[in-house]
Amino acid sequence: MHHGQDIDVLVSEVAPRDGLQSIKATMPTPLKLRWISALADAGLREIEVGSFVPAKLLPQMADCAELVAHARQISGLFVTALVPNLRGAQAAFEAGVQKITLPISVSEPHSLANIRKTHAQVFEEVQAVVALRNERFPGVEIEAGLSTVFGCTLQGVVTDDQSLAMAVKMAELGVDEVGLADTVGYANPAQVRRVFTRLRNELGALAGSAHFHNTRGQGLANVVAALEAGVTTFDASQGGIGGCPYAPGASGNIVTEDLVYLLESMGLRTGVDIDRLVAAREWLRQGLPGEALYGFIPDAGVGKNFTYAKEAV
Amino acid sequence: MHHGQDIDVLVSEVAPRDGLQSIKATMPTPLKLRWISALADAGLREIEVGSFVPAKLLPQMADCAELVAHARQISGLFVTALVPNLRGAQAAFEAGVQKITLPISVSEPHSLANIRKTHAQVFEEVQAVVALRNERFPGVEIEAGLSTVFGCTLQGVVTDDQSLAMAVKMAELGVDEVGLADTVGYANPAQVRRVFTRLRNELGALAGSAHFHNTRGQGLANVVAALEAGVTTFDASQGGIGGCPYAPGASGNIVTEDLVYLLESMGLRTGVDIDRLVAAREWLRQGLPGEALYGFIPDAGVGKNFTYAKEAV
Repeated sequence: MHHGQDIDVLVSEVAPRDGLQSIKATMPTPLKLRWISALADAGLREIEVGSFVPAKLLPQMADCAELVAHARQISGLFVTALVPNLRGAQAAFEAGVQKITLPISVSEPHSLANIRKTHAQVFEEVQAVVALRNERFPGVEIEAGLSTVFGCTLQGVVTDDQSLAMAVKMAELGVDEVGLADTVGYANPAQVRRVFTRLRNELGALAGSAHFHNTRGQGLANVVAALEAGVTTFDASQGGIGGCPYAPGASGNIVTEDLVYLLESMGLRTGVDIDRLVAAREWLRQGLPGEALYGFIPDAGVGKNFTYAKEAV
Repeated sequence: MHHGQDIDVLVSEVAPRDGLQSIKATMPTPLKLRWISALADAGLREIEVGSFVPAKLLPQMADCAELVAHARQISGLFVTALVPNLRGAQAAFEAGVQKITLPISVSEPHSLANIRKTHAQVFEEVQAVVALRNERFPGVEIEAGLSTVFGCTLQGVVTDDQSLAMAVKMAELGVDEVGLADTVGYANPAQVRRVFTRLRNELGALAGSAHFHNTRGQGLANVVAALEAGVTTFDASQGGIGGCPYAPGASGNIVTEDLVYLLESMGLRTGVDIDRLVAAREWLRQGLPGEALYGFIPDAGVGKNFTYAKEAV
């Protein structure tokens, strides 16, 4: 989405998708609805509500269309979903999403392992999705979410050139935005600064969001580097849920609560109220009893000196 | 200490002091000795082994002189200790430390609450310590460790001007180095960049280390900002032990294991071997059974792509 003039950084909440799809238990739909409302109520402007994938593959995401319908009723909220292919894109468009994110592996071995597609096959699929959007769903945004940009457990090193070539290719195929994701928590701040600077130089206004994982505790350090490279949209997950192969302490996504505190304390306006954001965890706790939630701010509070970043005058 | 030419950043291990003094249980001296040896063995060049304070106040630190004597036997290790006053400084000098750190509160209410001294009284004490060193222990370094630089639970906001004025005063009184500490986890990267840049501009070579706490999960984010401001010495604590008013997850000091990974993955040489560093936790575990240890790297590992920063050629 385009940022409002009243915020400096857009925090894109991905817990309902990236978080819930990596947890085995399924959060009941009524609690998901309350949770999404509470997240929006805290001031989050963009929420990825789910993933349009076959229910037999990911039963946790089976209610995605219902969540989209609900979220679209919330004033001021931009509603996005992940889609793996043309079929998912069509379902997402029909459900009424305002943006879809297509995950694109820069690493071809990762692409083959994950979705059994070569790069050539992926390009055909993206082309078909863009054509469908152009023809029948104009106005819906398409983001390519490049994964394994900072390294891949299968391919090993992924070069900056490989990532940039894929980003340029996506722009040529007609996507509206290209984001970069650190799929396995390999990114370091020097690399982040370098790659996002190149992305911005080569793609201009199409340079999109940063999606970091906190597997090695480097998530917010990478955010600082990305901010310097001009990134203004960050994915984050309430309670840090999602993609957590290690326990305990090794949360998956960066924690929304801690990210908002970081940004606001640096004087960057997010539009998010931290108290209300922390309160929204209650729905997650009810919906996924016993699931570990991460984050420092919910325990430590914001501290005596904290003030929200002021509106520019 | 002066960095060797073979490292870019000095990681100063403070767990034996800052960590152990905030934990109620006392780690047995024989295990402390093994632990300090293991830390040095992992490649750490500087260790703050303890605090020279009355044993009735901090029984955990009663063996400090013995630890200094042991650590001084370790080749290539620079041995430091914290001292609160002239009496402690004399004991530390006599024990054979190579550096003392004097904690100096920028916030006067904090100074009064902590050591019952006004700023004027603190200046007298620093002057006396410097005179003692100059007269009887030349060559031993004196660092002023400015605390509450980034905010204070008693005073509230601490201004950059207040911190810089105190730094300049310490330089005038003859200390060799002025470090800045975020006592309660209030620092944000924008502030860190600003204050350390001023410290370097105003103090030149006397600008010293950064000491961050991870209370709000912002520790490594602040390290990235400090690196940009030219800081090359960072305090850190194995397992993140120390100064932890919140539980769980809200570790005190930044975690040495995660810091070393951050720096090395950015291409900055620390001289520290992460595997051996993680192995050293075993002594801490034996010495403080049941105590929570923090850090992502010990659980997640360094990942397939990790390589140590190469020697400059």
